[in-house]
Amino acid sequence: MDLETYLRKTATEVNTLLDQYYGNPGTELSKASNHLLFAGGKRLRPALFKLAADTIRSGSSTGILPAGLALEVTHNFTLIHDDIMDGDATRRGKPTVHTLWGEPAAILAGDVLFARSFCLIADAMAPDAAKVEASAMLAKTCVEICEGQQQDMSFEDRQDVSLEEYLDMVTKKTGVLYGAAAAMGAILSGANKPQVDALYSYGCSIGAAFQIQDDIIDLMASSEQSGKDQASDIREGKQTIIAITARAKGIDLAPYRRVLSPAEIEEVITLLVKADVISEVQDTADAMVKRAIDGLSVLRDCPERQLLSDLAYFFVQRGY
Amino acid sequence: MDLETYLRKTATEVNTLLDQYYGNPGTELSKASNHLLFAGGKRLRPALFKLAADTIRSGSSTGILPAGLALEVTHNFTLIHDDIMDGDATRRGKPTVHTLWGEPAAILAGDVLFARSFCLIADAMAPDAAKVEASAMLAKTCVEICEGQQQDMSFEDRQDVSLEEYLDMVTKKTGVLYGAAAAMGAILSGANKPQVDALYSYGCSIGAAFQIQDDIIDLMASSEQSGKDQASDIREGKQTIIAITARAKGIDLAPYRRVLSPAEIEEVITLLVKADVISEVQDTADAMVKRAIDGLSVLRDCPERQLLSDLAYFFVQRGY
Repeated sequence: MDLETYLRKTATEVNTLLDQYYGNPGTELSKASNHLLFAGGKRLRPALFKLAADTIRSGSSTGILPAGLALEVTHNFTLIHDDIMDGDATRRGKPTVHTLWGEPAAILAGDVLFARSFCLIADAMAPDAAKVEASAMLAKTCVEICEGQQQDMSFEDRQDVSLEEYLDMVTKKTGVLYGAAAAMGAILSGANKPQVDALYSYGCSIGAAFQIQDDIIDLMASSEQSGKDQASDIREGKQTIIAITARAKGIDLAPYRRVLSPAEIEEVITLLVKADVISEVQDTADAMVKRAIDGLSVLRDCPERQLLSDLAYFFVQRGY
Repeated sequence: MDLETYLRKTATEVNTLLDQYYGNPGTELSKASNHLLFAGGKRLRPALFKLAADTIRSGSSTGILPAGLALEVTHNFTLIHDDIMDGDATRRGKPTVHTLWGEPAAILAGDVLFARSFCLIADAMAPDAAKVEASAMLAKTCVEICEGQQQDMSFEDRQDVSLEEYLDMVTKKTGVLYGAAAAMGAILSGANKPQVDALYSYGCSIGAAFQIQDDIIDLMASSEQSGKDQASDIREGKQTIIAITARAKGIDLAPYRRVLSPAEIEEVITLLVKADVISEVQDTADAMVKRAIDGLSVLRDCPERQLLSDLAYFFVQRGY
């Protein structure tokens, strides 16, 4: 099965299970919790969870899928709270939860999803010791995600963020939940520590690379392609890896911190391409993906391991 | 040991363990998470957790105390988020977290505490199956607490809340976390299902009774006694059990929904006492406590079970 087919199949499975668990929201609060969760999404974290599980032991992902769902539910919890903090009005083409239900209900809707995640892990058909380990990993991961979001917000007031600080931030904000997805799939399938560690590192790396690719897409992809405002990061003066790499080369993007015409966007892209900023950033993401894939060599060779490689390349090769 | 001594001793233990776990906050976000947690409090939930554990098996509370801490940490998570939603500026005599760090950091600070709670359960020295059960119970409880807070907020726009709705709200908002405290102590000490169920019901009942007593204290205790504004619930037109019971007797408190002089507060108290509103409300709380204590008869007779009785009476007999 190719990656695209696999992802499509997993998304269907995830959506079916979501519907079984939460398809009949009894309260207005449950509706608010469900809003974003039922608005689609590629379900990449459950897919990674499944691939990791089946790489450890073929077919093992079936009984533990509720724990894979926990990763999607946790992801949606963080999105709801992030949207409040960032004051974002739309997500996945729909009004955000706080826009529709108000901030107090949106805070609660996120909290409910967070709580549901741990109920879901308990529902997995796996040894209790593995479930305890998986729960602790998800909890520790959530602490790091919060730290990453806090770092990201603190960057807004600064123009001197280092590459190291940026990489630490994206690893926490985006990487560790992919790391946890892969590691939890492995843990619940009876993996040993070197296997769990390899999958955790793999997930963290491809998750961080995903975020770097997002920074590239924000600049390079037209609004028609991505469905988002082109060059919004530059307009807002965000400390992305592109801004940081440009600064290291003496290129100041501050003059572009304003509404930009299509011609001006072309101008800044040309500037950054000529100075090798874009290629260096792409190289950084590619190197992370390569290291991630190399780390998988401790795992048995199987179709799922191949799909893990494909997934890693997909993270940095997608155009939008 | 009498209850007062026991509570004081437990608070010291809890504070010591909190200090071991979180005494060296590395980040600004950890400081925000710690702020309220280290600002004191009676640590009633860990005390209940310990009493329940030791009633099941003498001495069993020692190794599982981290899970008792999880209840205090979860309680503080809900307080931080509630204070944002309610726009409250002070708590335990200190500025609230969002007042000091802003709302985005306060949302994250609460999320971090929520996550820490599940790390703490994993740290308990108990069989894995019990830890899975305890985690699932805490997670389910948190969903209910969120529902209770949502109900409480929805009552603000209504003047027709029934006694049944009120009791459902306080059971969720306050009761179930006491229920979980008692049940988790029991589960982690190897209790059987009837024992766990009895302690869960006991905790839910005394927690709800605690909230009813809070409503009485808000009206009856002077600001000097309670450290809070006297009669703030009536001033704000809150749907407390006092307002609901008064309405059932044809007494409309709406005219008192404004700043009240001490003489006017006396006037409304006299009105409610004469109409037996206060005594009926007190009877409701007392009946809940009596039922809670009766339910403990399935447990072995021991000093800790006696302290559970004393704790229940303390919840409704405290004057402030």
